[in-house]
Amino acid sequence: MAAANDQRVYRASSTAPVNIAVIKYWGKRDATLNLPTNSSLSVTLSQSSLRAYTTASCSSKYPTADGDSLTLNNKPHSIQGSPRTLACLADLRSLRQQIESSDPSLPKLSTYPLRIVSENNFPTAAGLASSAAGFAALVRAVADLYQLPQSASELSKIARKGSGSACRSLMGGYVAWRAGEKEDGSDSIAEQVAPESHWPEMRALILVVSGAQKEVPSTEGMQLTVATSTLFPSRAQSIVPERMTAIEKSIQERNFETFAEITMRDSNGFHATNLDTWPPTFYLNDTSRAAIRAVHDINRAAGRSVCAYTFDAGPNAVIYYLEKDADCVLGTFKSILTSATEGWESADIKNTNLLEQSIDPRAAELLSKGVGRVFLTGVGGGPISKKEHLVSESGEILTIAA
Amino acid sequence: MAAANDQRVYRASSTAPVNIAVIKYWGKRDATLNLPTNSSLSVTLSQSSLRAYTTASCSSKYPTADGDSLTLNNKPHSIQGSPRTLACLADLRSLRQQIESSDPSLPKLSTYPLRIVSENNFPTAAGLASSAAGFAALVRAVADLYQLPQSASELSKIARKGSGSACRSLMGGYVAWRAGEKEDGSDSIAEQVAPESHWPEMRALILVVSGAQKEVPSTEGMQLTVATSTLFPSRAQSIVPERMTAIEKSIQERNFETFAEITMRDSNGFHATNLDTWPPTFYLNDTSRAAIRAVHDINRAAGRSVCAYTFDAGPNAVIYYLEKDADCVLGTFKSILTSATEGWESADIKNTNLLEQSIDPRAAELLSKGVGRVFLTGVGGGPISKKEHLVSESGEILTIAA
Repeated sequence: MAAANDQRVYRASSTAPVNIAVIKYWGKRDATLNLPTNSSLSVTLSQSSLRAYTTASCSSKYPTADGDSLTLNNKPHSIQGSPRTLACLADLRSLRQQIESSDPSLPKLSTYPLRIVSENNFPTAAGLASSAAGFAALVRAVADLYQLPQSASELSKIARKGSGSACRSLMGGYVAWRAGEKEDGSDSIAEQVAPESHWPEMRALILVVSGAQKEVPSTEGMQLTVATSTLFPSRAQSIVPERMTAIEKSIQERNFETFAEITMRDSNGFHATNLDTWPPTFYLNDTSRAAIRAVHDINRAAGRSVCAYTFDAGPNAVIYYLEKDADCVLGTFKSILTSATEGWESADIKNTNLLEQSIDPRAAELLSKGVGRVFLTGVGGGPISKKEHLVSESGEILTIAA
Repeated sequence: MAAANDQRVYRASSTAPVNIAVIKYWGKRDATLNLPTNSSLSVTLSQSSLRAYTTASCSSKYPTADGDSLTLNNKPHSIQGSPRTLACLADLRSLRQQIESSDPSLPKLSTYPLRIVSENNFPTAAGLASSAAGFAALVRAVADLYQLPQSASELSKIARKGSGSACRSLMGGYVAWRAGEKEDGSDSIAEQVAPESHWPEMRALILVVSGAQKEVPSTEGMQLTVATSTLFPSRAQSIVPERMTAIEKSIQERNFETFAEITMRDSNGFHATNLDTWPPTFYLNDTSRAAIRAVHDINRAAGRSVCAYTFDAGPNAVIYYLEKDADCVLGTFKSILTSATEGWESADIKNTNLLEQSIDPRAAELLSKGVGRVFLTGVGGGPISKKEHLVSESGEILTIAA
C-alpha cells in the first residue's frame, strides 16, 4: 500500500508505430469523438525506421498548480490547448479511478499530475502520420503507468479520440478500424485482422517529396469533403465497405495482386473525393503523379503487380511490395532517383536497374528532381514496453539515448 | 433542271465555332453512335479567335475512282480511314437523296464525289476542342451544299457521330446536348438554351499550358472511366442531371455566381472520376492546379465569384468571367503571367494588377512558368455561311485568305 505522503515518481515507457492505411479514413460522423464515416484498414510499419517513444510519469510531488505536462521532441507542449490530449488523459484517469475504487490498497495515481515526455525518431514535418504514433504511444504509456487491464482494442477507443488513425497504431500487423454505428462510439474500435507474422514479407518504400507543404490540414479537409463532395456519399456508403471485405480476404490469403489493386484504387478514390471537394483540395502534386505512373509502368513491365502506391493527405508515396520483389522494386526506384536521395543505406539490392527502361522518362525525371529522401521499412509489431525512461527516477526530463 | 452531263462544281462554305463545356460530356452509352451517358452544356466561343472554316464541294467531273476527299489544314486526309467522317457523310447524302427523290428537277449531288477542304485558325495541337469545330463545320458546309432543310438540332445528330461535342458547335450561345434515352440516338440532340444575345457579356480567358502532352486520348479515357470508376455512376445518374437543371436556370437568370460554382464543381468532379479510373488518368498538372488556386484566390479577394475555371481532357484552363470584371480578372492574370506570354494584344485593361497580391505566390510562379500563351474570347454565335470558298470554281483546292 502506498504511503499517504507517497513521494515516488511512477514511470512507464512505450514505443508506438506509424501505420499507413490501405483503405483510407476520411470523414467524421462525430468530430468530438472522432467517429469515422467509414471503416479503414492499415499496415503497421516497423518501429526500426519510424516510431514515437513516450514515457508517462506521475508523482504527488509534481507541482499540482502546473497540472499535467507534456514535452514533445524536447519542447514543452500545452495540454490545455489540446482538447484531444485532454480527452485521452481524462478517459485513462477515469479507468484508473475505477481500479483504485475497487482496490483501496493501490496508490492514487489518478490524483497525481502527469509528466509525459515523447520523442519521434523521424522528422514530424515529413508528413508521416506522426500524430497516430504519438497518440498511440501516449495512450499505451499512460495505460501501462496506470496498470490498466483493458485490451489494445479497448484502449483504441481512447487513442481514437486523440487522432482517429492513432487507434490503428496500438496493434501490429494488419489492423482494421471498424467504423461502428453507435452514437457514443463504443463500437468504433481497432482490431487486428492478422498479426505481422501472418504475412511478414510485406515491405514499404516511402518516397518523401521535398519542398511540399500541406495545403489543408486533414481534420479540416475531411470535414469539407463530407460537407461538399457529391461523390463522397457513394464512397462512404458502398465503395469502402466492399473494399474492406475484399482486402481483408486478400490479407488472409496473402494475395498481393488483389491487395495491391484495392490499395491503389482506394488511394485514387480518396484523392478523387478531395478534388471533388468545394473548394477543391489537392494533396498529390506532379511528383506524386510521377510515382503513380512509375508503379503502373513497373507492374506492366513485370507482368503482375509487384508494387502498390498509396498516398495519405500529402504528396509522399508509400509503396508496398513483397520482400521477394525487393530487387526489382527497390532496384528500379533507386536507379531512377538521384544518388543524392538519402535513406538507401539499408537497401540490399542485388540486381539494380531491372525495370528502369520501362518507366516513362518524364515521370523518372520528376521523381529524380522531387524525391528528397526515402525510408525502407515493412510490416511490424505493435507498441513495445521500454525500460529506459525519458523521465528520471527523481522526475527530471531526459532525452533519449538514440 | 441540271443537265445530264452537268460539269459544274457546286460549292458551299461555312465556319463553325469551338465550344467549351461547363457540364462535361464524359462517357458513351453507345460508342458507334456517340450516345453519351449524361447530358452536357457548353458555351459557344466567338469565331474571331477560334474557328474551323470548311468548303464542301461536289461535281460529277471529280474522278469517281478517288471517291470523296478531305483536305485538313492543307494536308490530304484519308476519309476511308475515318469511320466517323464516313458516318457523317453517309447521313448527309441520305438526306440529300430524299429531297432528290421527291424533286427530280434537282441535280443529283448525292451521286457526285465530294471534295472537302477545311482549315483551323488556331493550332490543332493546342488541345482546344478543334475536332468539335471541325466536324460541325463539315456537317454545316455539306448540309448547305446539299441545301438540306433540317434544323441545326436535327443536323446535330449527324455531327454527334463525328465527335460527340461537335453537336454543340452547330449553335451559338448556350447549348445543351440532351443525352436522350432511345437506342437509335434519335433523341440525343443539341439544342440552344439561350442565344448569345441573351447573355452577351460572358467572356473567356484561355490559358494554354506549354509542353503538355495528353496522356490518354479522350475517347479511350472516357470509356475506361465508364468501365472502371466506382464514383462515375453517381456522377452520370444523379449529379449531372441536377447540375443541368441548375445551370440552365442560372443562364436564364444571368446569375454568374451560380453559373461559376456549378462550372467549377463540374470540372472538378469530372477530373475526380478520371483519378478514380483504373488505371488512373490525369489531365490536370501542377500548372492547372495553380490556375484553380488563383481563381479561388481572386474570387475570395473580390468577395464574390468574378471568374470560374473549367478544364477539358487536358491541362489548359478556360476561365469564364463577365465583361464588367475584365479589368480585375484579365488585369490580375496578366500581371502574374510573364510578359513573354503571347496573346494579350487585344486586351484592353484599364486597372491592371488589381488582385495580384491575393494570389498564392507559389501558384503565381507556376502559372508564370507554365502558361505559354493566352486566348481572349467570349460567347459567340453559331456557324456562319461564307461566300469565299476554299475550292475554286473549277475545283482546285485553295488556301484561305487569312
